[in-house]
Amino acid sequence: MSVLVVGSTALDSIKTPTAENPRLLGGSASHAAVAASFFAPVKLVGVVGHDFPKRYVALYKKHGIDLTGLQIVEGKTFHWSGEYEVNMNNRRTLSTELGVFETFTPHLPDAYKNSPYVLLANIAPSLQHHVLDQIRKPRFVVADTMDLWLNIALDDLLKLIKRVDCFVLNDSEARQLTDDSNIPRALKKIHKLGPKYVIIKKGEHGSILSGPSGLFIAPAYPLQKVCDPTGAGDSFVGGLLGYLASQNGSIEKNLRRAIIHGSAVASFCCEGFGLNSTTRATKQKIAARVRELEKMVGF
Amino acid sequence: MSVLVVGSTALDSIKTPTAENPRLLGGSASHAAVAASFFAPVKLVGVVGHDFPKRYVALYKKHGIDLTGLQIVEGKTFHWSGEYEVNMNNRRTLSTELGVFETFTPHLPDAYKNSPYVLLANIAPSLQHHVLDQIRKPRFVVADTMDLWLNIALDDLLKLIKRVDCFVLNDSEARQLTDDSNIPRALKKIHKLGPKYVIIKKGEHGSILSGPSGLFIAPAYPLQKVCDPTGAGDSFVGGLLGYLASQNGSIEKNLRRAIIHGSAVASFCCEGFGLNSTTRATKQKIAARVRELEKMVGF
Repeated sequence: MSVLVVGSTALDSIKTPTAENPRLLGGSASHAAVAASFFAPVKLVGVVGHDFPKRYVALYKKHGIDLTGLQIVEGKTFHWSGEYEVNMNNRRTLSTELGVFETFTPHLPDAYKNSPYVLLANIAPSLQHHVLDQIRKPRFVVADTMDLWLNIALDDLLKLIKRVDCFVLNDSEARQLTDDSNIPRALKKIHKLGPKYVIIKKGEHGSILSGPSGLFIAPAYPLQKVCDPTGAGDSFVGGLLGYLASQNGSIEKNLRRAIIHGSAVASFCCEGFGLNSTTRATKQKIAARVRELEKMVGF
Repeated sequence: MSVLVVGSTALDSIKTPTAENPRLLGGSASHAAVAASFFAPVKLVGVVGHDFPKRYVALYKKHGIDLTGLQIVEGKTFHWSGEYEVNMNNRRTLSTELGVFETFTPHLPDAYKNSPYVLLANIAPSLQHHVLDQIRKPRFVVADTMDLWLNIALDDLLKLIKRVDCFVLNDSEARQLTDDSNIPRALKKIHKLGPKYVIIKKGEHGSILSGPSGLFIAPAYPLQKVCDPTGAGDSFVGGLLGYLASQNGSIEKNLRRAIIHGSAVASFCCEGFGLNSTTRATKQKIAARVRELEKMVGF
């Protein structure tokens, strides 16, 4: 079954202690859509300007991504620029130019409205609501977010959390949202906001799922070389939902393996700038890392 | 088979945001010995002063710990005092009074010298060497350490690392020792210093073992209430080595389950001040948490 992905479609200029790469293909929807495409057909919703390089459109197409919902409008593509510290965990934003995102309203093509799996990748909660309003009876809706929306659009975000099946956020966002430094307690508090499933991403420390059958402690794939972690979280949710959409059986039964597939795709993302390494992954290479992870956690 | 534990035997005065407890039984050897005692007979090596409360001697005895190697000498027991921040991860030392530890030289009773399993719990590396010098053909030697020894006794520590089968340290110590912020790379660098097995403790994020059959990513037991994490790392290595000593078969075969047992015991440690909660654990309660962890990581 197919996955609908809405989120940001951007150009990222990224600086690390060892290299600098301008105007890479980036944005939460780009990372999530490519990650999901290894497992299921993907429909993209987003907006770019006329400056959006044709090679990036070709890249989406190479991954079989349906671009009917990608608006190409007058103006400049959303451009983010950031810099990582030596530890590759801390990063600071150097500049954010919203461009055509400033006036973006996601319109779903009719063919998108029956999408069974919906990923509201990181984007303003008001836009995530707007997409949900247009969807008919989705089977499973996942929403991701970022600290920015906790700071400037908390009411919208809280309303959104009530509407989704699975809410994904990172550990510092979970602490901020719940005002609680204890992750197991924070998970309980987030369930009270509505969602059946909550996933807290912890970067190199993996992730933790809380749902009806308790906690699932998931590892990150250990990497000896992290080139650029931008988009790893988006790749994680994209891979997760793509895998879910490709499987028969209940969400409950498949969600743990979906998370591991998300971890595996995210590890490829970290090994190259932008989407350079993700796009070189294959279903087989991802499956090999899933098997490795399986061996690394068994006892 | 039995476990020899050498380390500090101390009185800890601990302040958290919600409570304050003076002169608790503490020290790396106390935590490790009690943790190991759930699985195997334990022989303790340490030193205390005449002010050491009799109830603490009784506590050791209640756990069947052999105290032939515990020196009780003129002077004051090592006293550490520290304070935790609200997140219960960051702590600062308020005072350290070495007392009788200042002149301590561990002498092993003859009956200790054939101990097959040896835990060099956190203590000055020179003392860890001194204990190893007195041991005949141990089957498995584990050494733990702390940042203090990296700062003031690095040469001694590097020589010690060469002599042990398994070296245990936490993530920030691993980064400091290897000057590398990447944990998988740090593990490789520490292997080059000598030990066959390296375990990096990551607190609430669990631990990671590196050995001949690759990496093992181990979870911490998720706790909704952390009362006092002092001694959790010592309980982890104690539980780990106690479990190993209780099992037939190769180290390689048993080490992963041993780590999970260490995690489970450490979780009890965190639930009370000092050893208050650890001493209320039982082999059955620990086994129940091991089963829970097994369910939490399966996919």
